[in-house]
Amino acid sequence: MSDFSINSTQLVCVAQFVAKPGKRDALVAALAALIPDTRREHGCIRYELNVSLEDENKVAFVEKFVSKAAFDEHCSKAAIQDYFHNVMPELVASHHVEVFSEVIA
Amino acid sequence: MSDFSINSTQLVCVAQFVAKPGKRDALVAALAALIPDTRREHGCIRYELNVSLEDENKVAFVEKFVSKAAFDEHCSKAAIQDYFHNVMPELVASHHVEVFSEVIA
Amino acid sequence: MSDFSINSTQLVCVAQFVAKPGKRDALVAALAALIPDTRREHGCIRYELNVSLEDENKVAFVEKFVSKAAFDEHCSKAAIQDYFHNVMPELVASHHVEVFSEVIA
Amino acid sequence: MSDFSINSTQLVCVAQFVAKPGKRDALVAALAALIPDTRREHGCIRYELNVSLEDENKVAFVEKFVSKAAFDEHCSKAAIQDYFHNVMPELVASHHVEVFSEVIA
Repeated sequence: MSDFSINSTQLVCVAQFVAKPGKRDALVAALAALIPDTRREHGCIRYELNVSLEDENKVAFVEKFVSKAAFDEHCSKAAIQDYFHNVMPELVASHHVEVFSEVIA
Repeated sequence: MSDFSINSTQLVCVAQFVAKPGKRDALVAALAALIPDTRREHGCIRYELNVSLEDENKVAFVEKFVSKAAFDEHCSKAAIQDYFHNVMPELVASHHVEVFSEVIA
Repeated sequence: MSDFSINSTQLVCVAQFVAKPGKRDALVAALAALIPDTRREHGCIRYELNVSLEDENKVAFVEKFVSKAAFDEHCSKAAIQDYFHNVMPELVASHHVEVFSEVIA
Repeated sequence: MSDFSINSTQLVCVAQFVAKPGKRDALVAALAALIPDTRREHGCIRYELNVSLEDENKVAFVEKFVSKAAFDEHCSKAAIQDYFHNVMPELVASHHVEVFSEVIA
């Protein structure tokens, strides 16, 4: 058995979005536009956008924040709220946002 | 619209596993045991294990390698093959491994 | 004694610059301007600019590339050459660029 | 001029050590031994040891913590204090530890 511990302070998020048909590029552009300001949040450790090599309509953010409070503050930002309430309904067929704690081996 | 480009050289992988009932801790231990040797692979950029805060049986590796070749070499290692063929069938109810390219904003 | 190995494929660089008096902000701006294009280089893993909390004129890039070849290609870019040959002489009093290999514990 | 901001919450540290003649490997081993426990500190974002390709006796930690408080807590750990007070005098000819704030472009 391996020896490990869990970092319950920092917060990891994997946020996956499947674009509606024909909307993948617009979705990538909309999500990429969120990156510069998010990286300037003092609690942001990582905020990386990725496109799937297996599902041409799928994109995923890999995120890490210094704490749940920093993540919650991020989620409350006007640009993020605008994305979820106004942009996502136009561009996204389905999505799944899940938060994690890192296991340190 | 945001300005972005895609890093088609490096490879990102999100590998998710849902443990069978009662097997979460054994799964975390089995996956954590893969971390030290993987991080010593010269093509490994990131190999981080995480436990879900929403599904108590779910764990996810967030991975990045310098190239698809480096990722393929990783996947062919004896310890990884042993995990997929011998360990995973005992411990995992379902899994999803997906590869991505990072979008650089 | 600890057990470790050295990643001789990837390349780490710490590039330190001390601004001439009154030139710190101009130096930070000049270096920050190099970040977006460098991060789009497919061999770039990390390219982070930092300002010292101990010497108000000192800044340092912490860099990682997938290989020495990728680092050399980065160094040959027109914007980097322009910085070293045209911008740095105006703004920098002294500098030290050093490359490293990561020790994986 | 580039547009940038400074992350004054997180803390970056570059800690450089030059080994006494013949002590480089013992120094790398002593520093590598600090890595596993440090990475388990909840405030640790990055703690990477590197060996110089230009000075065979030089090693450098590249570190990032969620806050100055987390960094100070790290520095107060028994293993770190033991390194600075008991191990370093035996193995190190000179050293320079400097803290930074990241510039977000």
